[in-house]
Amino acid sequence: MKHALTTTRAQNFAAWYQEVISEADLAEESGVRGCMVIRPWGYGIWERIQKLMDAQIKLAGVENCYFPLFIPLSFFEKEADHVEGFAKEMAVVTHHRLVGDGKGKLVPDPESKLEEPLVVRPTSETVIGAAMSRWVQSWRDLPLLTNQWANVVRWEMRTRMFLRTSEFLWQEGHTAHVDRDDAMVETRRALEMYRAFAEGPLAMPVVAGEKPENERFPGAVATYSIEAMMQDGKALQAGTSHYLGTGFAEAAGIRYQDKEGTQQYCHTTSWGVSTRLIGGVIMTHGDDDGLRCPPQVAPQQVVIIPMLRDSDEDDAILEYCRSLAAELRTQSAFGEPVRVLLDTKATKASNKRWAWVKKGAPILVEVGPRDVAGGNVAVLRRDRLYKDDDKLASSFDPRDGFIASVSATLEDIERTLYTEAKDRLEANIRRDVTDLATHFAAEEKVVGWVEVQWSRPTGEALTKIVDQLKGLKLTMRNAPLDAAPADGPCFFTGDAAVERILIGRTY
Amino acid sequence: MKHALTTTRAQNFAAWYQEVISEADLAEESGVRGCMVIRPWGYGIWERIQKLMDAQIKLAGVENCYFPLFIPLSFFEKEADHVEGFAKEMAVVTHHRLVGDGKGKLVPDPESKLEEPLVVRPTSETVIGAAMSRWVQSWRDLPLLTNQWANVVRWEMRTRMFLRTSEFLWQEGHTAHVDRDDAMVETRRALEMYRAFAEGPLAMPVVAGEKPENERFPGAVATYSIEAMMQDGKALQAGTSHYLGTGFAEAAGIRYQDKEGTQQYCHTTSWGVSTRLIGGVIMTHGDDDGLRCPPQVAPQQVVIIPMLRDSDEDDAILEYCRSLAAELRTQSAFGEPVRVLLDTKATKASNKRWAWVKKGAPILVEVGPRDVAGGNVAVLRRDRLYKDDDKLASSFDPRDGFIASVSATLEDIERTLYTEAKDRLEANIRRDVTDLATHFAAEEKVVGWVEVQWSRPTGEALTKIVDQLKGLKLTMRNAPLDAAPADGPCFFTGDAAVERILIGRTY
Repeated sequence: MKHALTTTRAQNFAAWYQEVISEADLAEESGVRGCMVIRPWGYGIWERIQKLMDAQIKLAGVENCYFPLFIPLSFFEKEADHVEGFAKEMAVVTHHRLVGDGKGKLVPDPESKLEEPLVVRPTSETVIGAAMSRWVQSWRDLPLLTNQWANVVRWEMRTRMFLRTSEFLWQEGHTAHVDRDDAMVETRRALEMYRAFAEGPLAMPVVAGEKPENERFPGAVATYSIEAMMQDGKALQAGTSHYLGTGFAEAAGIRYQDKEGTQQYCHTTSWGVSTRLIGGVIMTHGDDDGLRCPPQVAPQQVVIIPMLRDSDEDDAILEYCRSLAAELRTQSAFGEPVRVLLDTKATKASNKRWAWVKKGAPILVEVGPRDVAGGNVAVLRRDRLYKDDDKLASSFDPRDGFIASVSATLEDIERTLYTEAKDRLEANIRRDVTDLATHFAAEEKVVGWVEVQWSRPTGEALTKIVDQLKGLKLTMRNAPLDAAPADGPCFFTGDAAVERILIGRTY
Repeated sequence: MKHALTTTRAQNFAAWYQEVISEADLAEESGVRGCMVIRPWGYGIWERIQKLMDAQIKLAGVENCYFPLFIPLSFFEKEADHVEGFAKEMAVVTHHRLVGDGKGKLVPDPESKLEEPLVVRPTSETVIGAAMSRWVQSWRDLPLLTNQWANVVRWEMRTRMFLRTSEFLWQEGHTAHVDRDDAMVETRRALEMYRAFAEGPLAMPVVAGEKPENERFPGAVATYSIEAMMQDGKALQAGTSHYLGTGFAEAAGIRYQDKEGTQQYCHTTSWGVSTRLIGGVIMTHGDDDGLRCPPQVAPQQVVIIPMLRDSDEDDAILEYCRSLAAELRTQSAFGEPVRVLLDTKATKASNKRWAWVKKGAPILVEVGPRDVAGGNVAVLRRDRLYKDDDKLASSFDPRDGFIASVSATLEDIERTLYTEAKDRLEANIRRDVTDLATHFAAEEKVVGWVEVQWSRPTGEALTKIVDQLKGLKLTMRNAPLDAAPADGPCFFTGDAAVERILIGRTY
């Protein structure tokens, strides 16, 4: 069977991923090391993610702000654990002017060397902490709930588009609270917001849980994540939420006067998701014909392709399509007007069809002269592209019936994508594995994740486990919040287990 | 008469401006040189600007993308005029790692020095041009219409919040076309989009026109701007649109095959507005009580303040306010649901009133026990805060009547703000000035702008004029598109004039 992409997932998952990104016009290499250009269809997905996520953030009473791109080195030096975790991968601004070198080239002007180098933010705890220390005086100012949508830079040696780029786009929530309990409630609220967002608009099932100590955010007391399983069985950490204790508050001086008049340090949190989510969507829903875009984040949900032939009938076809588009736009799906594109570009209809299949528009509608005459539309659902005989599963529906059911169809597509991914996730978590090396040695099939019970050791005992897993190219993903209680010995130490934890390969 | 701010516009306009920014919680110094923190109310205004402008950009068929923050030096070296104009004020990244210096401090790791330094984008013509050269092959790919919302950095020695900061937020449109005419249509479309946006949602009258040669964007063939008059009579360049000719296309290799099969260079444009618009709103509409926020860009349009007294009546007041807020939200103004905030923060009602006056919420509603009993609301319009006797001009309206008229009231507030500013603009453009030195020497009053006829000289003749104006701290703003045709001698040279041009002090 022939597919729209030249590489299938089974042949080479990594090459397939790059081909989807290229063929679906999602992003491309920029010529700037480690940085990508996000193209309109890819950026459109990000705009949808921003819009829907931002509404949830605002609903929780969190206010958007904007903080500086540059962070003075001295800010970083204050929180020792934090700088330790980030110091190795930051872009450093050292000069503020260029001059000609006399040979037609530009060089940093030595006269413009900064007294204190500036770091391009890899994350903003330190600079937002400095602002919070000005904004928080009294218990009345708490909780302080802020968020920003921004670009951040972490110098990466090996990059992969959307998954690991030197520059990426994200939101970072930063909050300050009176005590541990209140901060922990916020940490978990953000985590559940991410879980609901992944499993709703992204149709991407995830496991929410706490990261083991060695995988914590630098400086955090507790880190929680949502982990999604890609089609190759690898884990993608798709969002994190951190309880930071009072460490960052002590470093930045975020203090409040409590009701009794005593000065107290705030307990802070931070939480973020990034353009990495788009990588997750690709590897969760993509197939050998390209992306299948979940309807809530698809920039266009219905794409109408007129089958024009440079003939007298073209005008009637276009008119029919315009009226169809207008009526579809009066329909509502997921609480918003349906997003409809009439593709009138001057290229062949069959090329357009395959371009939109690769981009993953949820519903394609093709309109030819016979459809106009019969009052029909030819409808292709991207989630079920082929019939059993491998032919395209176009259905020929009465125009009005299609319009009336478009909202239900879009919801059904989302449900189909979610169910398929959820079944795969559940089928590929094994709880009966006794020998990790043997289990994960099977290179040819999806090996997924293994859930084991463990005693949550710290220090050297933990390091030993981490190293052992590393030897098998494995990591601990998280301890699922919804897992059954521990009831046996630790997989690693034989001591009494205290929780269950997922192990797998990861992006 | 006492006002909410300690400094009046008449006393010290610059100090007043800073006080509005501080007291209205718009922004603050960040501790990072030249970079500001944009606080929730200021960022909320920017979010409104983004939302409304983005809709106009999309309506014009322009697609949003995202391009890298970093630009290799070599990209800049390609367009000579462009680099000349920007080379003096760029943040330069030279290292990608920090290490400890052994004395508890961090320093750039000498081992991590970049082979080619990276510039933090001051604007993105060069890096977007490189992408366009990949995207454009044929006339069928044109026009190529892209835009990005992004942060940019221009190292500034003297900064002023919103008006001139090292980092700022903006949108930059970049388009490629088959020929000059098509590119010029787009340049002017963007200019008119900015004019309509300023005069509509921002209620800020502007003059749209072409910049003189010496004020062109580096590398541009023609630069157009919208110029707004601040209350101190100075001009604020509030948006620019550039026709770039084929210079950037030649530097980046943006070529297409025309219908005859010949390779041609594209004609490109770029256009942008930034967070500077917020500075314009402050200096156009602010008064001695703080900001007056135009209703379309106000994050909240109606703020309800319950007059609570820790008494039994509090619950009834809150219930009344909640129901009022809910009903107001069902109303629509400017085509969107009315934005309503019920301020339940634990501070005194009178403090809240003045906080919201300073922030410039268009309508304040205060609700006390008597209002609940009588089914009334106390309404304060921010655009007419005082009665003739200098008392607050609260009106006591029946609740239902207020709700029914809220949309019309918001529209009337916008109209009032616009008319006031428009009258001021028109009253302060003088066309009869014969001696600039004398006219602009008057430091004590608003001197505004002077319109003169000129012959549009180039080269040394132009330089002479520019220097002469510079001696008077004056610049040419633009040649208004709507000005009367020239019909006399050039103000500067005595030659026959070809157009009229505005002269003034500027931000």
